[in-house]
Order: sequence, then structure tokens, then C-alpha cells
Amino acid sequence: MSEKADLLFTNAIVLTMDQTMQQFEPGAVAIHGDSILAVGLEADLKKQYPDAKTFDCGGKVLMPGLVNAHTHVPMTLLRGLADDLRLDVWLLGYMMPVEREFVSPDFVQLGTLIGCAEFIRSGVTAFADMYYFEEDVAKATVKAGLRGVLGQTVLKFPSPDAGSYEDSLEAAREFIVGWKGHDLIVPAVSPHAPYTCTPDILRACATLAAEYDVPLHTHIAETAFEVENMRMQENMPVVPYIKKQNLFDAKLLLAHCVHVDQGEINTMKHYNTGVAHNPSSNMKLASGMAPVTRMLAEGLNVGIGTDGPSSNNDLDMFEEIRLAAFMAKTRENDPTALPARQAMLMATRMGAEAMHIGEITGSLEAGKRADLILVDLDTLHNNPRFRRDPDGIYAQLVYAAKSTDVTDVMVNGRWLMQDGELTTINLPALMEEANQYAKRIDQFLIKREQSVLSKLIAIGGATEGESYEVQAKVQISEPEISIESLKKPELEIVYSRHYQEFDTYFIFNDPEQGSVRHREDEFINADGEVAYVRSRLTHVGPRREQEFPSKVMLSRSRFLAPATQSLRFLREYFTPDREMFIEKDRLRWLVRYKQEEFYVNIDTVKTPQLGHYLELKSRTWSRTDAEEKAALITELITLLGADPEKTVTQDYAEIVGDQLRG
Amino acid sequence: MSEKADLLFTNAIVLTMDQTMQQFEPGAVAIHGDSILAVGLEADLKKQYPDAKTFDCGGKVLMPGLVNAHTHVPMTLLRGLADDLRLDVWLLGYMMPVEREFVSPDFVQLGTLIGCAEFIRSGVTAFADMYYFEEDVAKATVKAGLRGVLGQTVLKFPSPDAGSYEDSLEAAREFIVGWKGHDLIVPAVSPHAPYTCTPDILRACATLAAEYDVPLHTHIAETAFEVENMRMQENMPVVPYIKKQNLFDAKLLLAHCVHVDQGEINTMKHYNTGVAHNPSSNMKLASGMAPVTRMLAEGLNVGIGTDGPSSNNDLDMFEEIRLAAFMAKTRENDPTALPARQAMLMATRMGAEAMHIGEITGSLEAGKRADLILVDLDTLHNNPRFRRDPDGIYAQLVYAAKSTDVTDVMVNGRWLMQDGELTTINLPALMEEANQYAKRIDQFLIKREQSVLSKLIAIGGATEGESYEVQAKVQISEPEISIESLKKPELEIVYSRHYQEFDTYFIFNDPEQGSVRHREDEFINADGEVAYVRSRLTHVGPRREQEFPSKVMLSRSRFLAPATQSLRFLREYFTPDREMFIEKDRLRWLVRYKQEEFYVNIDTVKTPQLGHYLELKSRTWSRTDAEEKAALITELITLLGADPEKTVTQDYAEIVGDQLRG
Repeated sequence: MSEKADLLFTNAIVLTMDQTMQQFEPGAVAIHGDSILAVGLEADLKKQYPDAKTFDCGGKVLMPGLVNAHTHVPMTLLRGLADDLRLDVWLLGYMMPVEREFVSPDFVQLGTLIGCAEFIRSGVTAFADMYYFEEDVAKATVKAGLRGVLGQTVLKFPSPDAGSYEDSLEAAREFIVGWKGHDLIVPAVSPHAPYTCTPDILRACATLAAEYDVPLHTHIAETAFEVENMRMQENMPVVPYIKKQNLFDAKLLLAHCVHVDQGEINTMKHYNTGVAHNPSSNMKLASGMAPVTRMLAEGLNVGIGTDGPSSNNDLDMFEEIRLAAFMAKTRENDPTALPARQAMLMATRMGAEAMHIGEITGSLEAGKRADLILVDLDTLHNNPRFRRDPDGIYAQLVYAAKSTDVTDVMVNGRWLMQDGELTTINLPALMEEANQYAKRIDQFLIKREQSVLSKLIAIGGATEGESYEVQAKVQISEPEISIESLKKPELEIVYSRHYQEFDTYFIFNDPEQGSVRHREDEFINADGEVAYVRSRLTHVGPRREQEFPSKVMLSRSRFLAPATQSLRFLREYFTPDREMFIEKDRLRWLVRYKQEEFYVNIDTVKTPQLGHYLELKSRTWSRTDAEEKAALITELITLLGADPEKTVTQDYAEIVGDQLRG
Repeated sequence: MSEKADLLFTNAIVLTMDQTMQQFEPGAVAIHGDSILAVGLEADLKKQYPDAKTFDCGGKVLMPGLVNAHTHVPMTLLRGLADDLRLDVWLLGYMMPVEREFVSPDFVQLGTLIGCAEFIRSGVTAFADMYYFEEDVAKATVKAGLRGVLGQTVLKFPSPDAGSYEDSLEAAREFIVGWKGHDLIVPAVSPHAPYTCTPDILRACATLAAEYDVPLHTHIAETAFEVENMRMQENMPVVPYIKKQNLFDAKLLLAHCVHVDQGEINTMKHYNTGVAHNPSSNMKLASGMAPVTRMLAEGLNVGIGTDGPSSNNDLDMFEEIRLAAFMAKTRENDPTALPARQAMLMATRMGAEAMHIGEITGSLEAGKRADLILVDLDTLHNNPRFRRDPDGIYAQLVYAAKSTDVTDVMVNGRWLMQDGELTTINLPALMEEANQYAKRIDQFLIKREQSVLSKLIAIGGATEGESYEVQAKVQISEPEISIESLKKPELEIVYSRHYQEFDTYFIFNDPEQGSVRHREDEFINADGEVAYVRSRLTHVGPRREQEFPSKVMLSRSRFLAPATQSLRFLREYFTPDREMFIEKDRLRWLVRYKQEEFYVNIDTVKTPQLGHYLELKSRTWSRTDAEEKAALITELITLLGADPEKTVTQDYAEIVGDQLRG
């Protein structure tokens, strides 16, 4: 090579991570402009480039920068917001409500810059991102000087940057058109996941990615639950499903792939799919352990990612590489699985190949961009160093070294960190801004969590409602009397229903919080079979509004219907102090009496065994109306053969509570 | 509290890790001498101790020092020596041979001091150790200023510090007598593991520990293999077995406990056993994932350990705590399992309780020793910080913070690190010494690994032998002719045998290395059944010593008998370039012919199918003897109905090799 070198790195342990995993010690690397000219022994390159300015690496490791194959970098601002929660509680209960409220171009640029600072500090030179306002991720990434494959998120719900998926698809197209061909940025499109996109969205994204020949970066098969649902709904696992939606027409980067089978791996290999393995995230969220050794054996390009810093909770690739090796050994029950050398390869060249930028970065080879780092192994926790085994240097880096051992970082021939000092990012001011966001987010969540009701509204979206009811309840020993009495001519029966009702009450020590009732109604048809089931969530307020004669009550409740989340989700989200379960058989009539409509319930409380109750209820909207209906309810109690003197003011939860205390 | 405080820590986020997990912000801690006087809000303690010298913590976290519940600290000197190997290859192939050669009081003190430096840097204030020359571990630990529960190893094999277990038991007794009552050191006895000790050793250790009321620290149920063997040999799992050997008479600290069942956990709980969970080591060696959440649910004190730095490869407790949380979530398939707060508790108070020093350390409480650390959360990867959830601070420490965030460490009221500077250890000189050891160890292993033979000797101990044989081999089509011919009067039959022989050859590209043959002999009795099996390992040298007329050969072999390691171990240890498998049926006679003894083998080679061979062999010791026997062998070939012109010089491996190449 006769080209002139701008800079010659000398006195280094050079790990090329190239096809033959060449090492040079003392090694050298020659740079010209943004690219690598030559890599070899110091003695050879000194002869070849006698006039180049030299940079003495002081015996440190000189290697390609680490490649983070999957992250959501602006979420740096949400690090540590909520932990030790199940995926849905974490995502639907915390991340999404906070994102809806706070994510903006400003938020995204700030989070990206701080995340990039952490990347640079820990030796990452390229990353694959997926978030909202990806245009702003790109701007901040360029400012930081890092290399990014950046995917604009598209999904079927309204998102912080788009009211509809058409909007976000259009934004993705604009982003791709605007940034394609940039030195540092490869724009991409990111349909969020098969289960958050419609088939149409997936197909549109595949078409877009193929049209512009850019990567398509998405999440698949992260949890067993996702795969189960896919099998139930589509009768196939996830990979065939996305194949059906044409995703393999695009250059794919598939994050997670925790639950994929051999056939799916074969399909992915056939299409040269990139995989991003996310060790910390998969362990922290208990998603499972991906079949990494099998994917590698089939020749797939498997990179390593940190995932977002809110499910990790940092962007430390050294941790991820070590954990990738540890997880593979644990999963395969084989300590020789995924040795250090291979784990480091995943985090460099193979990761770049998975991101479809392998031709320009990921290894120290002539012609590739100068994306490189220096790692100081002359630190306490890296000593002593054994040299017998040439793979020992990878083991040292993977099992003992820390991200804090990275001292210098160059991307595209430009210094981003020198001797531990960031050169492109002014950190203190940014961190101050980040903590201002944290304070506002804290306030938002603290306010929300002050009341059970506001927590309910936060996850339920706009379906809040409110109702006032006049009601009375009386214990009866023989339900048949009341059922017979309903045939009286004064009563017109509008309709009748039969349910089995399963109620779970979440109860809080603070009585002002009221309680949350999760009700599952089984509708029983004329043949005594369950016709269908619905679930509803009701917030039962703390106070009775008013009490009328004969213990007829005016009550108010707010509700969200239907309950789309599982009881388990709700339990982990609301973290009640106590729970109570009540099962009852309910015969219900809607009757008309003196021009007014009333619900008549004849309940048999089966768990716990409380016997039979007659309930009378009517919706109301004014004081006068409520007073009139209260009087009519007293008449109806008598009419239905019960004793108005025996009415009780408590609801079932209170009756059970009193019994428990008694 | 009216006692005078020497020092008042102020302006801290104080995490007490006490029974109610109190936090104080801004908090303070008052110290007098070696102990904590008071912990509380800064405002309160300032009033209480107005005259105390104050130490402004600058808003850092002030918490109890981390407790490393299981390690082998001198192995710091063997960090990175051999990785990505199976436990037995790593232990028997590398660790033990190197330890036999290098471990000395000097080695142990050096390794301990460097390990202690790493402990201090990463916020560890107390650790439980198990190694050889534990007296020297204690001296170095005192020099470093750390707190240690230090166990002198006892095992049934000769060890670097004892020719027999009686010697090491005596050393343990002396160690305990000498150090009991020390401010920093709690001496202990460490029978290595049930499978490396005899029942007598275990009982003697239990008696010793009980006699002096010191902890007994051992490894149990680390691998599924250990438990399988125990069930096979003793018809019970490990915990009942050690109970039978009286181990529960002592204050127990049981490392690993990866493969224990509910009954065993109950037994351990009954005896207030401490458990040391070792996340990195268990993952790196693929030992499995311990049932930590179940043990915690039963109320066991489960601490966290790094294990030795040669199976980790560092002493970073921050990594271990995070990994403990990650592993529990993965094992239980539940992201809410082992939340950060509980993981941090395991690494502080609960770890101290597991080590039976909970009354003096592990939490910030009045009366306990002043063992504490400062952690700086005002670093890039720890920002932003959310305050809504009081458990968020534990999540920040566990999921985002790094060991390098520890800035100050105090043990027993004495500073060991201030603002990142070690105060008791002069590191550069020690690291230079460590690298001198590393060079010598490298040389030792490089020399050993230069030849297959020396690798064989390294694992085989002293059983090397050598033999010279005169031999000839000739293909025959009808073995019956030779069998009949053996009845001739010239031949006296001394005995006859029948084997099935299964030979695996390890072959190396370098022909000078010779090959290693692993032979499994099944002895077939008169009823045609396998009477017993033996395995032998033979190194087949590269050269024939001499060839006589009729292709009678003089050959030399060196061997180690029996082969105690599995074929899988040998494969991973020798890493041959090729392997070959040969199975044959061998009828063998020892015959006397003209006053000399000869082995007659009539072999049917079944895998691959090579047909039948007649082999004649005789041990020899001199050139004259060899020549005479070579002539007699030629006669015997004819006598046994074969054709001396058809003899071949190759052994079976060569015949098969030629066929494969052909």
C-alpha cells in the first residue's frame, strides 16, 4: 500500500477480529482520513509508513469498536424508572404512559446524546437503534460522532411522534430519504413487533425497506407468550408469520429471537438475517435464554445488544458480552459453549454483519472505516496476564475487563474520546437537563400513584366513566318467593339474565383509596351453559354519597370497561394491601315499576358461603330522582316478599370483610 | 447515646440494610473507634454529636461494605490462566498441576494482597475464603485491613501445604487456635467437598469446628454430576450425607448448593446453615442455577460470592449481585423474582449472617463494626435518578452502578480507600511480582504442552511406565486354524482370556507427538458375559525402535494405567487434531514356547470391519533378547498356520488410517 498515512498507531496488542482472527504484538494500524490503510506488525508498518505521525498505544489493546446491535438509546432518560416488574406492568404501566407524556424531539436528542456518551465511554462505536423521532436520534448521533443504524418506529397504536401508523410510515420514508448515504447514519424502518403491528403495517414496512435497500429492524419472539399467541391466532410460529408478511424481502435485523425453533433458524439463515441477542434484558425481564449457540452453528450473524437502558439498566457492552458467554454455557449445560473469542466476535465484526454494515466496520482491516478503541489491560482486575494461549486475550477482555478500561475511541477517523476525556459531548450540562426530566417524570408518576383511581385511569386510556346508583340490599332465606313475586302485575319484566360472577377486590390500607373490583361475568344461557365471558374493572369509591330511609343508598362508582389486562397484571400494577375473592350466582331482571326501571338481582353468594340476597338498583342523575327511586325501592322490597327492616348498607366486600374481622 | 463520636459522616444517602431497611437522606453515621455509634438523619445526629469531626459524603450513598461469601482469594494469581473449559479439565488439567508446582506461602500472601486490593476497590469489606496456607491468607488480609472468615482447606489428596489430610487437619487446628478472637479474622476449617474428602475427614472437621465454635466452610452440590454420584454411591443426596458425617454440628457455610431439593433446604434451614451463592462461577462453569428464591423463601441466609478469580474471572461483587438477580428471574421465569433490594441484602447483612458474623457486620446499626463504603451515583451510567420508589436506589445500585463507582472504604473504623486511593496496599510492586509468577507459570505450561507425553504425565501423576515389545501381526482368514494349532505340544498355554476392546486414538498433525490411545477392555467370562471393565491410557511413541526379518518389530510405549478420567475429559484436555475409533474382539493366550513367554492375540476387528489378525508379542529388555524373540515369533507364525510373508508392520490405527486415506 503506497497511500500516505495520516496516523500510525504503534505499540499495541492489535486484535483485528478479521476472518482469521489475526493478532499483532507489538502491532500497528495505519489510518488515512476516515479509513484504515493497513494493519500489521509495528516493525512492518513503521517501514511502510515512515513519515506518518505516530500514536503510541502504550501496550494497550487496539481493537475494533464494539457494536451494539439493539437498543433504544433515548430511553437513557428512563433508566431506573421502574424495575423488578413483569414486562407488561413495566411497559403498559410505566414506560408507555411516561412516553406518551414526555417523549419529544428535545427528550430524544437529550437521551441520545447522554446515551452516546455512555457508548463512547464503554467502547461502543456503532449501534442499532429503534425509537420515536428517529430523525432526532440521528442528529444527536452525528453530533456525538457515532455510527448508527437507526430505525424509525412504526406501530398500530398512536405513538409519541405519530397519531396513526400512516403518519409514522410517512415519517419513516422521509427519514430514510433524508439520511440515506450519510457517512455515519444508515436509516432504517422499525415496525415495533408482529404483535404491535397489523399485517398491513408489516408489509408496508417491508416494501419501504426493500424500495430503499435499508435495513428493517424489529423485535421478534422475545417471550414464550408472544409465540403462544402467534400459534393460537395464526397457527404458526413467528418467523413463518413475518415471512408471510414479506419481511424477508428486506435486509432484516431481528432483535431477541429467544423462542425460535430449528426451522425458523433455517429460514433466517436462508435470508442472511441478522440477529441481535440481548442478554441482560432477556434475563432481567425473564424472557428466556436464546438458542445462540444453535444460531451460530447454523452460520447466522448474531450480534449482541444492550436493549434499552430502562430494561438493563445501562449501555455497558462489556457486561453484555460476558453475559452472552455465561448464558450460552448455562443454557447448553456446557462450559465450553460460546468461548470468549466467539463472544467478542459477536460484539464486533459479526454484530456489524448482523446490522448489514459489515463491509465498513466491525474489524480492523484495510479499507474499513477507522472505528477503533484502546483498552487498558494494565489495571488491577486485569492482572496478571497469561500469554500461553492466544485466545487468553479474549478471555481477559470478556471475563475480567470492564467498560471503564476503555481509554480512547475513534469513529470514522475522528477522536470521540482521548485518555478518558470525551471530545464531542459536554456532559455536565446534559446530565443536569436529564435530572430535570427525571424530576418532572417523578412528579407525574407520584401524582398518578397518589390515588388508585388515577393509576386506573393511567392504564385505561380514555374509557373513564361515572355512574350514580340508588340501591338496597336485603338478605333473604328463600329466593323462590322473590322469583315468584316478580310475576306480579305491577311489575313489567324487560329482560332477565343469569350470570356466574367472579369478583376479585383489591383493597388498600388507606380507606380513602377505595377499592378496585375485577369482575368476570359468565353469562349462562337457557341450557345452563356458559354462553360468553366478559371482564370489567370498577373503581369503588370510598364514600357513600347519601343514605335514604330503609338504608337505601346513593353510591358513585367510576369504571373502565372492559378489563383488557389480566388479573395478574392488575395485581402487580396496583399492589393492593389485601385481596378478597367473591363468587356468586346472579339472577338478574330489568323491571319497570311505576314508570321507572330497576334492576332486581337475586344473588346466591357461593364463595364465601353467605346465603341469598335480594338487591334492587336504579341509575339516577339528580337528588329528586334519587329520593323518588329510594322510596320506590322500599316498596319493591316489600312487594318481592322481603323485609325492608332487614336491609344492609354494606356491599358484599364489606360483608365479607366484617365476617373476616368478626 | 451519650458516647463521644470520633467521626460523623454527613450529607449521605444512608442505606442501613437493617431489619427494616431504613434509609436516611440526608443521612449521617457516627463512629467511635472501630464501631458505629448511631445512624440517622443528618439533622438529628448533628445535634447529638455536635463536637464530632465531620466527613462530608457529598451526596454519595453510604452503606455497609459488601460481603463476599465465598472465594479463594490467592487464586487471583491464576486469573485467566485457562478459560472456557469443563470443570474437570480446568481443575485437573490446569489448576491442580499449577497449584502443585507454584502454591507456597509467598504465592498465597501475594495473591491475597492483590485480591484484597481488588476487594477494597470494589467495595468489599468482608469475605469468606478457602485455600491452602490459610495462615498466610490471614496475615495478608490483616495487612490489607479487611475482615475475613478464613478456612484452612482439608482434603484427601496431598495438597500444596500438606502431604496428608492428617497434616492439613493439624494445620487447621493450629490456625484456629492461633487466630481465634482476632479483631478481623475468624478462623475456620474447610473440608474441600464431600467428594474430595473421606467420611472420616468430614467428621474430624466437624468435630474440630464444633470444639472451637468456628465456622465450617465447604462446597456442596455444585454440579448435577456430584449429586448423581452421591446418589449412586451413598443412595442419598448430598445434604443427608454431610448430615450423616455430623457437619451440621458446626456453624456451616455451604458454597454453591446448586442442586439441592426441598428436603435438603429444610434441613439446612433447621440448622441455620449459611449458603454462598456464586452466580458468575455457576454460569461460567455451567454448573446450573441454584434455587435461590426457594432458599430465601424458606428463610435461609443466602449470601453472594465471587468464587475464585480463576473461575469468574474477577472479584467484582457488583457484577455478582446483578447476576444473582438476573439468574433468579431467569430460573423462575419471573422478572419480579429476587428484586434489587433483596439482592443487595444478600450481599450485605444476609451474607454476613450466612458467614456467621452477622452480629458484627453487614448493616449500619449502632454497635456493629464500622465496615462501610461510599458509592458515587453522580456518574454518567447512574443518571438520571428517580426518587418516586424508595426501592429505586437499590435498583440503581444493582442494575446500573459499577464497582468503579466505589470511592471510599472503611473496615473496623480504619480507612482502606479514600477518594479512590488505596491506603494499605502498595499495588504497583505487587502487580509486578504477580506478572513474574505469570511468566513462570506460562513457561511451565508451555513446556508441558509442547508434547503430548508431558501433558499425559502432568495429569497422570507418578504412574508413568515404559515397555519394549517385540511383535508381529499377520492377517488370517480363518481364526479357527490358529486356535486349533495352539493345542500343539510345542506350546504350553499359561492362561487364556477373552476381551471386547474399544480403542479411541487421539491423533495429532505433528507426527513427532505420537498418539494417545484410550482403551476400554471388557473382560468376557466363560458364559459370554462382561465380567468387568478396565480403562487404560497409552501413549504410542512416534517411532519404531527397530525392524527384524519378517517385519517383526521392536516398539516402545509409555503408559499410564488406569485411565481415571473420562474419554470426554481426555478429548478436551488433549484437543487432538483427529480421532479414530476401533472395536475388536480379542482372544488372548499367554503361551510358553522354547522357554520364552509370548502373547498370542487372535483379533476380529469389528469397527471398521478389517477381518481377522494373528498377533504375537513378547516383552523384551535387551537387543540380544529381542533378536532371539524375533526369530521365535517368525517360527510361531508358521506353527499357528499363518504365512510369515504376509506380516504387516502397521498397528491397527495405521491400517485404518491407510484405508481412510486410500
